[in-house]
Amino acid sequence: MIEINSFGVLGGDQRQASMAESMAADGYPVLCAGLEHVKGKNLKKAGWQEALKADYIILPLPVTKDGVTLNAPYAATELLLDREFFEMLKGKKVFCGMKNTLLKAGDYFKELTLLDYSKREEFAVRNAVPTAEGALEIAMGEYDGMIAGSRCLVTGFGRIGKVLSGMLKGMGARVTVSARKPEDLAWIEIYGYTPVSTGKLSEHQGFDFIFNTVPTMIFDAYTLAKTAQGAILIDLASLPGGAECRDAQEKARPGEVGLAFSFH
Amino acid sequence: MIEINSFGVLGGDQRQASMAESMAADGYPVLCAGLEHVKGKNLKKAGWQEALKADYIILPLPVTKDGVTLNAPYAATELLLDREFFEMLKGKKVFCGMKNTLLKAGDYFKELTLLDYSKREEFAVRNAVPTAEGALEIAMGEYDGMIAGSRCLVTGFGRIGKVLSGMLKGMGARVTVSARKPEDLAWIEIYGYTPVSTGKLSEHQGFDFIFNTVPTMIFDAYTLAKTAQGAILIDLASLPGGAECRDAQEKARPGEVGLAFSFH
Amino acid sequence: MIEINSFGVLGGDQRQASMAESMAADGYPVLCAGLEHVKGKNLKKAGWQEALKADYIILPLPVTKDGVTLNAPYAATELLLDREFFEMLKGKKVFCGMKNTLLKAGDYFKELTLLDYSKREEFAVRNAVPTAEGALEIAMGEYDGMIAGSRCLVTGFGRIGKVLSGMLKGMGARVTVSARKPEDLAWIEIYGYTPVSTGKLSEHQGFDFIFNTVPTMIFDAYTLAKTAQGAILIDLASLPGGAECRDAQEKARPGEVGLAFSFH
Amino acid sequence: MIEINSFGVLGGDQRQASMAESMAADGYPVLCAGLEHVKGKNLKKAGWQEALKADYIILPLPVTKDGVTLNAPYAATELLLDREFFEMLKGKKVFCGMKNTLLKAGDYFKELTLLDYSKREEFAVRNAVPTAEGALEIAMGEYDGMIAGSRCLVTGFGRIGKVLSGMLKGMGARVTVSARKPEDLAWIEIYGYTPVSTGKLSEHQGFDFIFNTVPTMIFDAYTLAKTAQGAILIDLASLPGGAECRDAQEKARPGEVGLAFSFH
Repeated sequence: MIEINSFGVLGGDQRQASMAESMAADGYPVLCAGLEHVKGKNLKKAGWQEALKADYIILPLPVTKDGVTLNAPYAATELLLDREFFEMLKGKKVFCGMKNTLLKAGDYFKELTLLDYSKREEFAVRNAVPTAEGALEIAMGEYDGMIAGSRCLVTGFGRIGKVLSGMLKGMGARVTVSARKPEDLAWIEIYGYTPVSTGKLSEHQGFDFIFNTVPTMIFDAYTLAKTAQGAILIDLASLPGGAECRDAQEKARPGEVGLAFSFH
Repeated sequence: MIEINSFGVLGGDQRQASMAESMAADGYPVLCAGLEHVKGKNLKKAGWQEALKADYIILPLPVTKDGVTLNAPYAATELLLDREFFEMLKGKKVFCGMKNTLLKAGDYFKELTLLDYSKREEFAVRNAVPTAEGALEIAMGEYDGMIAGSRCLVTGFGRIGKVLSGMLKGMGARVTVSARKPEDLAWIEIYGYTPVSTGKLSEHQGFDFIFNTVPTMIFDAYTLAKTAQGAILIDLASLPGGAECRDAQEKARPGEVGLAFSFH
Repeated sequence: MIEINSFGVLGGDQRQASMAESMAADGYPVLCAGLEHVKGKNLKKAGWQEALKADYIILPLPVTKDGVTLNAPYAATELLLDREFFEMLKGKKVFCGMKNTLLKAGDYFKELTLLDYSKREEFAVRNAVPTAEGALEIAMGEYDGMIAGSRCLVTGFGRIGKVLSGMLKGMGARVTVSARKPEDLAWIEIYGYTPVSTGKLSEHQGFDFIFNTVPTMIFDAYTLAKTAQGAILIDLASLPGGAECRDAQEKARPGEVGLAFSFH
Repeated sequence: MIEINSFGVLGGDQRQASMAESMAADGYPVLCAGLEHVKGKNLKKAGWQEALKADYIILPLPVTKDGVTLNAPYAATELLLDREFFEMLKGKKVFCGMKNTLLKAGDYFKELTLLDYSKREEFAVRNAVPTAEGALEIAMGEYDGMIAGSRCLVTGFGRIGKVLSGMLKGMGARVTVSARKPEDLAWIEIYGYTPVSTGKLSEHQGFDFIFNTVPTMIFDAYTLAKTAQGAILIDLASLPGGAECRDAQEKARPGEVGLAFSFH
């Protein structure tokens, strides 16, 4: 007899709900708690206690925002990350993202079998999608013109650069992508973007948007003054931030850098 | 000797500025007034009086929002649509959009040679792009999930339907498009969307978004209850509004229509 | 009681077989004859006589190639378009493409209820796809280089122009499309191709391919010499042929028009 | 004083000619020999002797097909890979692809400074494009139906898999891609293809085409019988060949594997 394990999905937002739905569609028994106010999903909802009886528990990303309660903005009631919660998790396989946040909430959580899904490469790949959409939403909100026909520079052709370039092109923008490695430049060309070697960024200008995805400092003062002239600069790189955005914004003379957003 | 006529571009927003830029790039002498606060554009700026000396005058769309001053949100000073303004336009070719708005501001404007560019088919085509982007921006703002992977229904395959479907697909959404005419359904399939005959809309459901572009009533109560169940409904059709959005929203029981936006 | 009519699908090639499959998948009873050697399809096969008992008969496009037998290259046996065949069709609804071809095979066919599907707009739309693929196949076969990165000019933005431009772009080509109407030029730009006004074709050159879809004479000797210089010219327009291909090829000095194909 | 080195480009086909053109467009002095019959290119043509005087020599890929003469199908005269040729190359930087082929033509070639461009990652990336186009051309030639709407399986998401999937989608095919790694499956989904885990290939069937890009044996007899049923199988993997094509074709009962092509 094959026994299918049951899953308890706790808290989180739309993405957590979508994941629960997709698992249920694959035939797994899934119980959801803390997603009471998520709209229009066919989820089997349960109380915290009931969902915690499942064999596998899936916690949201991040697991907590305040260090005290589970991250569950759509929950009817809150769930404390206390010893009682810990006791219910004991002996189960617990999936979570950014597990250090949980460990800070209580030492005893270290005793659990925690599987950090945010460290998996495919998780990082999939996570590039909401990041790219977030950047696009900022871009649409801040720009008076249209994305279609706008001149966009994406620095870096990693996960976010790849996804974002594709979306911008899909929206009708004219997309330039910078990279260092010759093979990335070859891919950039194959995908139909204009390739620019990172070292030659200052030779290119006239962009409406610059989306920085490179976590190191690639825009020096000179490149900023040339390339970012009049552009809206949206920084998607992890700290310490390649574009030195805040700095750029403060120092920028009017008309130099249009606007700068840090997006972490 | 070929004499090239000069153009005076007055007021408007980013689009008016882009148009001025594009004409200047084509070699025409262009003077702009009332675009003082538009960011980072290489426009030859002038005062109202000076720009009004050009042979051709291009007014914004709409020409006025308050019926009293020119629509010029990026202007340093306002321009009254008074008799003095009228006198300066006399004898010139004046391009404007939605000329009835101008005629309401003063009877004497009827004496002018007014060319209404908003009636040209290619204008309507190009105007579908900002409309589609606006709809996408609303969608991104209202939805907790991602556009990528979401299930979108676009009703109608006219100008806006065509542009919007392309953008949604470019963002990675799963796009269904409804139309009445068999040749439109053939095109919908060729472009890679799922075609649905308008008459069979009620057989399809499970959408995250419904973008209505059809100006007649295609969603009756039954279709709304079935197809729009749990979806975010964004109405892009001209009044009187195919989706009867407001009505739908008011009558909808919780979980029936997620949200409804009227977008005119 | 709902009675579903049965369909007899006779002769034709892969497309006829796909159509039969798709109808069967929609729940209609379908019998196929003359498709014995079509590979790997789940078709309910029958003899000519049996299939001809169905309520509706679907004949291939074209109905005949030799004027004597049914066009059925994948059939085990041939079917004569004789009086016996006519008698079996009497009283049935008969769908066919290019019905004049059938009428030439025998006067008595005029007595039948013939529905010519090749005259329907959606049929013409769908038919643009194999035409565009055929053009692409010729292009791939004749060109030593790659389609990806090649510079392609498509003249005309009708059905074939639309489909072919999309395929070329999908293959990574740099696509320029010419049209006469301003709204077509607006669409061409929105879809991400370079728009060229038909009247200004001679100002553009350096193409690797020119795909002509315009059935009137748009390439005069001067335009040919300038625009088609060194290009492979593939003529997709109906006779009498816009590009005057044969003529062009004969008159062309070496290096003027690379190659010219007439594709009807 | 900056001295720009001159390049001698020898033999090869359209690709070699395009490369020469692109270098000349970048401002380098380029002399071509052995490309006399390449159509319509603005190349500075020279004799073998003259081109061999350049500082850098670029040899074609492969360098030779017969082991005796340079691979130069478009040359007016042939060039022997003899000691005289070797003497002219001495002291120069010589770029070539698959240098072992040259070394077999004569031991003395080992003394040269040979830079094998075929080992560079970006070369392999760019080379995926003609390979994918070649596969598509075979597919178009062998299939009675259309690529648009056809069901294609691409096994493997390496360089060729990525490029080929994009082209097939660009042509309107319904594309399924198999991969082993979870992050590849995530990318496959993001790019809009249907992802299939390599281990579960046998659960999927009904394909019109299978393009194999995996150089190991992923199709066992069972998977072949299930997945490749009725499909045209095109093998793009390097030998020894993942699909065991020849074997498959020989063993296949009628209707099992439609056709099989080995493409090396």
